[in-house]
Amino acid sequence: MTIEKVAIIGLGLLGGSIGLAVAEYLPHITTAGYDSDPAVRQRAVERGLVGQVCADAADAACGADLVILCVPVGAMVEAAGAIAGVLKPGAILSDVGSSKRTIAAALAEFLPEETVLIPAHPVAGTEHSGPDAGFAKLFNQRWCILTPQEGTPPEKVQALVHFWEALGAMVETMDAAHHDRVLAVTSHIPHLIAYTIVGTASDLEEVTRSEVIKFSAGGFRDFTRIAASDPVMWRDVFLHNKDAVLDMLDVFLTDLALMREAIRAGDGVTMFDLFTRTREIRRSIVALGQDDARPDFGRGDHAQGN
Amino acid sequence: MTIEKVAIIGLGLLGGSIGLAVAEYLPHITTAGYDSDPAVRQRAVERGLVGQVCADAADAACGADLVILCVPVGAMVEAAGAIAGVLKPGAILSDVGSSKRTIAAALAEFLPEETVLIPAHPVAGTEHSGPDAGFAKLFNQRWCILTPQEGTPPEKVQALVHFWEALGAMVETMDAAHHDRVLAVTSHIPHLIAYTIVGTASDLEEVTRSEVIKFSAGGFRDFTRIAASDPVMWRDVFLHNKDAVLDMLDVFLTDLALMREAIRAGDGVTMFDLFTRTREIRRSIVALGQDDARPDFGRGDHAQGN
Repeated sequence: MTIEKVAIIGLGLLGGSIGLAVAEYLPHITTAGYDSDPAVRQRAVERGLVGQVCADAADAACGADLVILCVPVGAMVEAAGAIAGVLKPGAILSDVGSSKRTIAAALAEFLPEETVLIPAHPVAGTEHSGPDAGFAKLFNQRWCILTPQEGTPPEKVQALVHFWEALGAMVETMDAAHHDRVLAVTSHIPHLIAYTIVGTASDLEEVTRSEVIKFSAGGFRDFTRIAASDPVMWRDVFLHNKDAVLDMLDVFLTDLALMREAIRAGDGVTMFDLFTRTREIRRSIVALGQDDARPDFGRGDHAQGN
Repeated sequence: MTIEKVAIIGLGLLGGSIGLAVAEYLPHITTAGYDSDPAVRQRAVERGLVGQVCADAADAACGADLVILCVPVGAMVEAAGAIAGVLKPGAILSDVGSSKRTIAAALAEFLPEETVLIPAHPVAGTEHSGPDAGFAKLFNQRWCILTPQEGTPPEKVQALVHFWEALGAMVETMDAAHHDRVLAVTSHIPHLIAYTIVGTASDLEEVTRSEVIKFSAGGFRDFTRIAASDPVMWRDVFLHNKDAVLDMLDVFLTDLALMREAIRAGDGVTMFDLFTRTREIRRSIVALGQDDARPDFGRGDHAQGN
């Protein structure tokens, strides 16, 4: 299967980055895009996020070999509904959602039989969102997870694998339910915790907001970056990946209760043991190119000329 | 009061950075340093962290106008004991510990009466530690909190303020107990949470460690940086700032329970409300120069040439 035209529905951080990445790494592929917000469409034209910005989702999807839904998880079904009627037989319908099981089931229910649904999740992003946030290198050295259902034609899966690899990503295939549990740990719970603690710190009476901001370099500021992520996207993730998130949250809460008890009891041995073990995983993440090796992420090198 | 000689006890990230910063910004001040680890002393000589590396803490402190204890909080009393006998009358004894109330009380108890104790906490650091981790600009644009007791001679406090300002820091003075509650929120709880979730993720049975590492760019990797911080330092912080940490942890746990219930109940309004509010504090932190404004902390700009 050859992909000649890609349609991108939703032109925010992810959709815009895919459009820019295709232009850079797969220039022979034409792209068309749509966003429900006219102001976003306008910026997409100005930034050249896709070859053609359409005022209608169906126009963008018409004739595409690959349609990628880049909207919040909660808007996927509606977005798919708007294009289902014009999908070319044999076209791949994919997405970039951070939660896969419920969405794949919902989409599969009403899509035309000839449409090949291959859910995908590029594990990449920044805390910024919208049509100005995207850039072509977003997927470089990042993993993209595909969750095809059994029976999906292998040549279609292969075509999508090649597409993501061409954008710089490494691809792994897994079951949608497993994806949701893995991402609950590596992404959803970290976001939930970050949002919550930033909320906690903002609302304290005895510690002022000004103090929280001033002394945030002690660790808190890292959480504020994650907690600046797109609210609609994240609300939808928690609404759709509820079971896995609640399960993993309870494991975390059990561990946190153990640490609370260690602090209460003055049990330095338990603390030291945990604090030593956790260094190892950081080293592996850096060694495998999944994070910047420089101290503090290299933060400030630019501004302060270190 | 004029500071002509500074002694630095403990030559890790903080002590080493102070030594390098004095050489760069206050070159007329002489520095002497000591570390209990001979290998650290050796590296301190090689890197020139201080003007003179001594094999004995008392030798380093002898004749100093300002002695700064840069050891983990749990080692402060022993470090102070080793130099108390040689402290020059009127000398300032300070530190860089992340917890202040219990330590200030412990030190005050056995110090000679002529010694001026002014606890300090520069809110700066990276996840690295040891004699190779320090750099002269660590304190640039960072806050340093002083917690002098009532009755401390103002000219001594002023001398320490000027010292830290010369190293690039902004200085704020507050009560030790208030310091401990502010830092519990902006630093200690974030570290506790990060250590705990990295431990949780490392120990899961159904999600492998390899998956956690691969898909860490979804948010988790940020927590691993903080959880790579020095284990001894952090164990001591939790042992010494127990009350404030437990209080703040309980406020956080209450808020997290509310979010858990919102997820369980599918209450998107509560989620959206929190996720929207938390963006504001990030903007203020960036606006006040306490974090890098670039997406993702500017991470990867160096490696990937974005």
